[in-house]
Amino acid sequence: MTSQHLLWPRGFSAAGVYSGIKTRPTADVGLLVCDTTAVGAAVFTTNKVCAAPVHVGRRHVASGRLRGVVVNSGNANACTGKQGQADALEMCRLTADRIGCRPSEILPSSTGIIGHHLPMPKIRRGIAAAAAALGRTAHHAMLFCDAILTTDTCRKCAAAEVKIGGKTVRIAGVCKGSGMIGPRLDSNHATLLAYLTTDAQVAAPDLRELLMSASDHSFNAVTVDDHTSTNDTVCILASGQSGADLHAPAAARTFGAALEQVCQDLARQIAADGEGATKIVTIQVSGAKNEAAAKAIARAIANSPLVKCAMNGNDPNWGRIVSAAGMAGVPFDPQKCVLTLAGTVVFKSGQPVQFNAAAVSRTLNAKEVRVRLDCGLGRHATTVWTCDLSKQYVTINADYHT
Amino acid sequence: MTSQHLLWPRGFSAAGVYSGIKTRPTADVGLLVCDTTAVGAAVFTTNKVCAAPVHVGRRHVASGRLRGVVVNSGNANACTGKQGQADALEMCRLTADRIGCRPSEILPSSTGIIGHHLPMPKIRRGIAAAAAALGRTAHHAMLFCDAILTTDTCRKCAAAEVKIGGKTVRIAGVCKGSGMIGPRLDSNHATLLAYLTTDAQVAAPDLRELLMSASDHSFNAVTVDDHTSTNDTVCILASGQSGADLHAPAAARTFGAALEQVCQDLARQIAADGEGATKIVTIQVSGAKNEAAAKAIARAIANSPLVKCAMNGNDPNWGRIVSAAGMAGVPFDPQKCVLTLAGTVVFKSGQPVQFNAAAVSRTLNAKEVRVRLDCGLGRHATTVWTCDLSKQYVTINADYHT
Repeated sequence: MTSQHLLWPRGFSAAGVYSGIKTRPTADVGLLVCDTTAVGAAVFTTNKVCAAPVHVGRRHVASGRLRGVVVNSGNANACTGKQGQADALEMCRLTADRIGCRPSEILPSSTGIIGHHLPMPKIRRGIAAAAAALGRTAHHAMLFCDAILTTDTCRKCAAAEVKIGGKTVRIAGVCKGSGMIGPRLDSNHATLLAYLTTDAQVAAPDLRELLMSASDHSFNAVTVDDHTSTNDTVCILASGQSGADLHAPAAARTFGAALEQVCQDLARQIAADGEGATKIVTIQVSGAKNEAAAKAIARAIANSPLVKCAMNGNDPNWGRIVSAAGMAGVPFDPQKCVLTLAGTVVFKSGQPVQFNAAAVSRTLNAKEVRVRLDCGLGRHATTVWTCDLSKQYVTINADYHT
Repeated sequence: MTSQHLLWPRGFSAAGVYSGIKTRPTADVGLLVCDTTAVGAAVFTTNKVCAAPVHVGRRHVASGRLRGVVVNSGNANACTGKQGQADALEMCRLTADRIGCRPSEILPSSTGIIGHHLPMPKIRRGIAAAAAALGRTAHHAMLFCDAILTTDTCRKCAAAEVKIGGKTVRIAGVCKGSGMIGPRLDSNHATLLAYLTTDAQVAAPDLRELLMSASDHSFNAVTVDDHTSTNDTVCILASGQSGADLHAPAAARTFGAALEQVCQDLARQIAADGEGATKIVTIQVSGAKNEAAAKAIARAIANSPLVKCAMNGNDPNWGRIVSAAGMAGVPFDPQKCVLTLAGTVVFKSGQPVQFNAAAVSRTLNAKEVRVRLDCGLGRHATTVWTCDLSKQYVTINADYHT
């Protein structure tokens, strides 16, 4: 993390401490706090099995006002019944008591194993220690970032700065996510966790709309295993301390573009760090009949284990890509599409195109691979980010027991 | 294969020969022929990218009359444009010339790599050799069976016998399928290939309806990678030689039940032989609000790589199963469901149930594992068959290049 960290926008402090929930001794309880009551918005998982903190967070963010976020990793507090709800509420109350606000101004988050009750004695000690450790430096931001990680192999941060009405507005974000990544976020739904800060001045409904739109073109366009988590949460806090107001449409557009850029940067980091991933695969679908078709085709390609294994093996087996597009259940005509694999056209007009398989295979052997499919049916386009499927993925998810 | 092989119903002969399409020297061109014109029905892949033989097969079976089937493995003749269509038609014409019928009475099938033109000199020699080798023994049935295999590690055969109106009716089938298995068959749509024979006397529309229904409860309920192939084809030929007519509803029901049993037996063999599979996983969903919901929930569980890896590792990580159900996009309430994993209740009333994880893990270490999820919302039930996801799956699909 450079100087452009989560606490770069004005008005925020953070902490991360190790409370003993995770086996690995890295921070597992984190606090992110605004100096004063912030304007808050959040989007959550659409999974019908959603974790206790998601239930509680939905209620708390409804007012559009939040003071902070409390989060633990190592345990998802999902499928934990009434006790789970009580535990999530207690996390909010303990945090509120320490920082001086109402419990309903705190958004709780949890990530980790499903179906186990939170170890509340550890959580209680963790929240107390985190509240005592709150600070404003890059180091504090880093510790908060650590506190949200599970199978991630690296921290994920992004930031942007824009000028609005002559004033400098900053946006920053951190996220976690490596497995169980197939987010379908909406205003009532993520174990992708992402927390964004900004010092813009904005009304809650506007912030919510800006977050929804940015999430749709970023977090909702990333898939590792297409398994929508019970805990996915993306939350933004706006401190207002820049003094720059987003009420004017032009200001909102400028801010929205920067927010989308930050969210896309974070989403790409999740795909690149997908469980067992050796590369990020960017699927660009264009010329689709409508937006839903573009998304369905891109997701069908991104989620095919056959395509993902071919990417792992640097195998230009493009039949797997075209057949994935054809199974998406939306308009698609192989006669009209053009498929470009890592810069080489491999299929066009319903016919295989002669190409140097060894050369394309060498191009596929990269940290980032681009698949471009033009459907030739319309003007709609979308991009989805995913990763390859490796033996390491199976090791992570089969060999290490709960 | 026991004496109950593909040629057990009266009126059929078959052959399989090695023509040099496959690298491994096992049969790769097969013929299945009825003594006289048979009543024929077939269901095909719903993939919008469908192979040339599927296009041709759909037209040929439309009359409800077929004399036989010509099939090759090692090349799918998919994404091959007009040349592909011409090649599929030539396969029919060559076969028809040899056995004495019209080309339109032959259903062609291909399976293997997508995007390469058929090696027609080999195909021509193969069909001539197969036609000369036609016979009625178990050995002939076995060679036909070999001719349809690709990454399969074993032959897949099933048969049944029923009494209808005092007469003995036989049904037999063979199939192939190990990867690219997520069939969505309908009257116009696999690379699942399955060929069924019977000596029942039946009208073409009735046979088609019986095949559709049996496929829905068998082939359409099996998934290895949920990647619907460009070539999936299930075809049945009825010779009529038993003299038993299926016109009466009771007769059709008796036959339909036996046909479904044969198809389910074959479908289960596909799941058990899924690429890299170490076990078959049977997902039984009950108490769903409607049939579509039952199917969506069962498929979401069966297709989750997280669930499949847990099965590979004998890990009773049931949160992955419940969360897969919750992401299916259909009515589901974790408070009302009961999840039973290999005979042990692990989740009920929205609460985790205490269980001996080591004991359940030992139970999961079996050739067949049963997952039962009662949704508690209605009376609809379904069963889906799948397999675990192993490192061997990645080896098969990443390390071996096209």
